[in-house]
Amino acid sequence: MEATTMQSLTFQRQRIETALEQGRIQDAIAILLTLHPADRADVFEELDEPERRTLLAHLDIATIADLLEEMEDEEAAETAEEIPTERLAEVLDEMEPDEAADLLGDLPPEQAAEALAEMEDADEVRPLLLYPDETAGGLMTTTYVALRRQTTAAQAIDFLRQISDRAEIPFYLFVVDKERRLVGVVDLRDLLAVSPDTVMEDIMDPDVIYVTAGTDQEEVARVMVKYDLAALPVVDAKKRLVGVITYDDIVDVLEEEATEDIYHLASVSDEDLDPESPVLEQIKGRLPWLYLNTLTALFASWVISHFEDIIAQAAVLALFQSVVAGQGGNTASQNVAMTVRAIALGKISPRALLRALWRQFVTGLMLGVLVGVVVGIGVYFWRGNLYLSLVLALALIGNLSVGSIVGVLVPLALEAVGIDPALASSILVTAVTDASGFFIFLTLAAHFLSKIMGA
Amino acid sequence: MEATTMQSLTFQRQRIETALEQGRIQDAIAILLTLHPADRADVFEELDEPERRTLLAHLDIATIADLLEEMEDEEAAETAEEIPTERLAEVLDEMEPDEAADLLGDLPPEQAAEALAEMEDADEVRPLLLYPDETAGGLMTTTYVALRRQTTAAQAIDFLRQISDRAEIPFYLFVVDKERRLVGVVDLRDLLAVSPDTVMEDIMDPDVIYVTAGTDQEEVARVMVKYDLAALPVVDAKKRLVGVITYDDIVDVLEEEATEDIYHLASVSDEDLDPESPVLEQIKGRLPWLYLNTLTALFASWVISHFEDIIAQAAVLALFQSVVAGQGGNTASQNVAMTVRAIALGKISPRALLRALWRQFVTGLMLGVLVGVVVGIGVYFWRGNLYLSLVLALALIGNLSVGSIVGVLVPLALEAVGIDPALASSILVTAVTDASGFFIFLTLAAHFLSKIMGA
Repeated sequence: MEATTMQSLTFQRQRIETALEQGRIQDAIAILLTLHPADRADVFEELDEPERRTLLAHLDIATIADLLEEMEDEEAAETAEEIPTERLAEVLDEMEPDEAADLLGDLPPEQAAEALAEMEDADEVRPLLLYPDETAGGLMTTTYVALRRQTTAAQAIDFLRQISDRAEIPFYLFVVDKERRLVGVVDLRDLLAVSPDTVMEDIMDPDVIYVTAGTDQEEVARVMVKYDLAALPVVDAKKRLVGVITYDDIVDVLEEEATEDIYHLASVSDEDLDPESPVLEQIKGRLPWLYLNTLTALFASWVISHFEDIIAQAAVLALFQSVVAGQGGNTASQNVAMTVRAIALGKISPRALLRALWRQFVTGLMLGVLVGVVVGIGVYFWRGNLYLSLVLALALIGNLSVGSIVGVLVPLALEAVGIDPALASSILVTAVTDASGFFIFLTLAAHFLSKIMGA
Repeated sequence: MEATTMQSLTFQRQRIETALEQGRIQDAIAILLTLHPADRADVFEELDEPERRTLLAHLDIATIADLLEEMEDEEAAETAEEIPTERLAEVLDEMEPDEAADLLGDLPPEQAAEALAEMEDADEVRPLLLYPDETAGGLMTTTYVALRRQTTAAQAIDFLRQISDRAEIPFYLFVVDKERRLVGVVDLRDLLAVSPDTVMEDIMDPDVIYVTAGTDQEEVARVMVKYDLAALPVVDAKKRLVGVITYDDIVDVLEEEATEDIYHLASVSDEDLDPESPVLEQIKGRLPWLYLNTLTALFASWVISHFEDIIAQAAVLALFQSVVAGQGGNTASQNVAMTVRAIALGKISPRALLRALWRQFVTGLMLGVLVGVVVGIGVYFWRGNLYLSLVLALALIGNLSVGSIVGVLVPLALEAVGIDPALASSILVTAVTDASGFFIFLTLAAHFLSKIMGA
């Protein structure tokens, strides 16, 4: 089938709503079940509270498990809270252990404890609860296949056939020694290509790339992307295999990390916020950064205050001071974005650093000249004062050069001292370009004050 | 092995450089070959021009092919340009068809044509050259396995064994009818679990999700992420199978799209730029947006010009006008980031729109009060003028409310009319918050002018 469009999903949702209104619950369920599980979650999330509750009461355990796996974390938790504990335990048993662990982590602690106590497969899930969400341990699943060096291909295939009715066969199998220490990886496709009596030791790749359970998810993603891995084994401090991370988890991590960078660059510190988030959460994630920004803005006001009597004599300066400060800030923001992204993608090398700085200085200078000259000419036609235009052009050249340099230097320096460059750069950089913009422009203007007055 | 660290790669690079300096070329190659192909590319990219050339002349075809596949697109093209055409053709034959097509697309047209003419597997690559880079056709590979409905599991496994020494066995096999139209997909793992005489028709999933060759890569990524697909078949207008996209290509797309959004939000329109890019390219990708920004800044100057005589009477206003404009802009930027991201991740639903707008209005108002009161009190202690503080606080409340609303409305409106919200929002939104900030503050100030003068 062609991938579903938003329109067709809206249509299906309306059909379900109509069926529910008319009390035809089984019809509503039938429509829902014709959809792909991912689409079911989309439709379900759009239904009203009472409609969801009706459906939940009538769906079977496996379908609810699928639904919760596909839903956004927060929505899944809200939905799970509505399910009676006993039934929830059955649903959790049906879910993939890593998904079940994530859901349990998002539930109120008492409900999570009760559900866990009633679960049959609690042992698969419990170890996963020990690791923070954003580490390799929090991403991994405990359902993997570990074989021994002397296992033959025939035995391995036989084993896979046995588990195939209750679990998905993985694309990669791991080989461990008698202490469960990871010693190799076997590609399922190689299993197919060899004779049945070949032992794992002969077809495994002993140079298996792994991470430890505490590794940060950003590093996990970097490793999997760099080495094009579909599955990455996770080991404990003694190199014993404890879980496996699969490529689909990495996609989520990449999206999370991109969201984080985009939000941080715009001074939003809570990555879970979206335009619909409750007001109080929004204020919590945004106000601290607005206060910090305000502080730097007031610092810029203080810089201007030294030129108050000059502005009183030539109020025209108040018209253009922000142009100089603002364009320096825009130039800097361009560089901050490029530098933060280069850091995130591991594309900036120490060797290239000096070259980058030099190029940004030249770029800033040239952008300054190109913007400065055009603004100077434009303002000359507007106000007819050559000195005002000259001061404006020079100040733009100066401040765009400053902006270009700090736009690269600040994120690199923050990264070097271990502060997230995406979150702190914008504020620091704007503080510099505002202050320097006002200072350069008003200092130059003070110098030519008599020629500018009355412009 | 544990994932390699930057430090250990630097060490290996230095060993290679030393070996090359001392003329021990085979030693240098030996060190390079101990590394994972992805790490080799990292090390190679950091070497100097002459060092690279020496290595290239001595590496074997297969190693060069691996190297080019792992390198960044631009660096790979630069490297390939150095290779004599005949040798390059052999390297291209050794590469995956989709990677070879990408590389050919980045080479100077004459060199690409010559290399293609000398290639043995040109037929696998040529069709891929027809599709733009950023479409499904540009992402797909032509090396896939297509079977017929009546093929048995034993025949399929036999076929896979035969191809396994010259190509990688794929995780998913596709089933086509006699017109090569896609009719189903078979998971390699299911092939293992069934009896040898089972036919494909019985184990295939007929509800296979596909895209057409012209589909934009952003949509391709959305589909693969949503449905957790490791491989997505690509069909032509007649539903004939023409290629397959694998999950590793999607990771690159996701990173590209995130880079694009981050750059666009910062008014950088060329996603290939990085801090090291040549000056002229930087200016091309950045200057147009700075000019546009300058235009809106001058519009704001024009707004201020209507209050010039008021500023002449109370120059203190020039100190604080930018605080009002700037904080409105910051609030708006926070909302632009959240809204653009929600659009990109498909997280904004028409149903939730009104709720989002209302919440953002309340949030903006409350942020305005919280910032306004603090700034008002702070400025009172600094300047000791109650009316100045009052005007400042009221203007902040007004402008943060405006900023919050336009920060959601503008990107949504741009998206609705088909303009990239990431690229155009920042400029439009800043134009509004600057103009409204200056206008609200100076209008209020004009009203209380006699009380503010001499502050």
